[in-house]
Amino acid sequence: MKIGILGTGMVGRAIGDKLVKRGHDVMMGSRTSHNEKAAAWVQSAGPNASHGTFAEAASFGEVVFNCTSGAVSMDALSMAGESNLDGKVLIDVANPLESSHGAPPFLAFCNTDSLAERIQSAFPGAKVVKALNTMNCNIMVNPQRLPGDHNVFISGNDANAKSQVITILEELGWKKENVIDLGDITTARGTEMLLPIWLRLARSFGHVDFNFHIVVGKDSRG
Amino acid sequence: MKIGILGTGMVGRAIGDKLVKRGHDVMMGSRTSHNEKAAAWVQSAGPNASHGTFAEAASFGEVVFNCTSGAVSMDALSMAGESNLDGKVLIDVANPLESSHGAPPFLAFCNTDSLAERIQSAFPGAKVVKALNTMNCNIMVNPQRLPGDHNVFISGNDANAKSQVITILEELGWKKENVIDLGDITTARGTEMLLPIWLRLARSFGHVDFNFHIVVGKDSRG
Repeated sequence: MKIGILGTGMVGRAIGDKLVKRGHDVMMGSRTSHNEKAAAWVQSAGPNASHGTFAEAASFGEVVFNCTSGAVSMDALSMAGESNLDGKVLIDVANPLESSHGAPPFLAFCNTDSLAERIQSAFPGAKVVKALNTMNCNIMVNPQRLPGDHNVFISGNDANAKSQVITILEELGWKKENVIDLGDITTARGTEMLLPIWLRLARSFGHVDFNFHIVVGKDSRG
Repeated sequence: MKIGILGTGMVGRAIGDKLVKRGHDVMMGSRTSHNEKAAAWVQSAGPNASHGTFAEAASFGEVVFNCTSGAVSMDALSMAGESNLDGKVLIDVANPLESSHGAPPFLAFCNTDSLAERIQSAFPGAKVVKALNTMNCNIMVNPQRLPGDHNVFISGNDANAKSQVITILEELGWKKENVIDLGDITTARGTEMLLPIWLRLARSFGHVDFNFHIVVGKDSRG
């Protein structure tokens, strides 16, 4: 499958590496067609990897990942272009973190809004699915590095798009039974709002090698 | 130990029942000294249970639980009285949920603020510890009902107060190693912000018999 990845940071490179290894053709997109980090990534990732502008990567991908940082995602997606995203599954991995006031960052907006909803609203032709935004990128592409079961959450309005995302998550290493479909795109409020505790757990543990697991009993009505 | 519980809802009754069974003297407080739910609870809970006003319960307790609903917690604590809370461990179980706009409720405030911080700020003499606010009350008092390990988070400024809370959590059935100390009272922002995903998980599962487990690896730097 042809996959476009918007963003050249750790998240985009980790997902790009894994999908190239799984046999996909991946184009990494950035603001310019001559981005050094993207070029270096292509060198290391091999012949199925390429890079270009946000618009070129979005046009290339049958599925597109938003791996830009949340503060610039709307800009990056505007540069990618509405027509290049139309009808496509757009996997939103970003969180709207705001670092201007020091550590830990807070969410620029939340609770009654989410980045995923803003993206879906601005790009109504795209099938936005929020996923993978609640863990470090090493875990996104290698969930087995943590012991036992733990979860990845998905939110989106289109059932077929979510099915496609589950298939891609399985390729990244996730067990299907560890994918939790929370519902429509507004449920992304819930996963973006995991970031404040995630940041505090990271500070408390001194590392980011952890993830959320929802332990489920039989029923509360017993 | 003498324990005051503010609030006569499911949460207060569940915690009260368990602590009475563990041999503690528990007074349940409400707005009036003749609350029917509190009186019925005393009848069922036995001779170590009593009830009274918020002020009487707060005065009675060496440790005080805030089990009122978040929307009325500040009012209830004002009625309990600052002098009755001074120097005491105040375990805040409430979440500032706002239901006026329909389901699911959202948080009345979050992200740069929390109910726990507002309580600590309004009652500087109390040693506020946020705990138990991220799960259904049946799990609060019987964590073994879910399979395997899962977590309870604590936040607070006073290390001794947190040690006392850990002892009480162990009496409720929690393994010490499943208590995660996130840090000072501002970290309660993180746990109160688990409510949006908790509410959506409950809708998705159709029940509330679940809890968060943080699965931890060795280190992300490997």
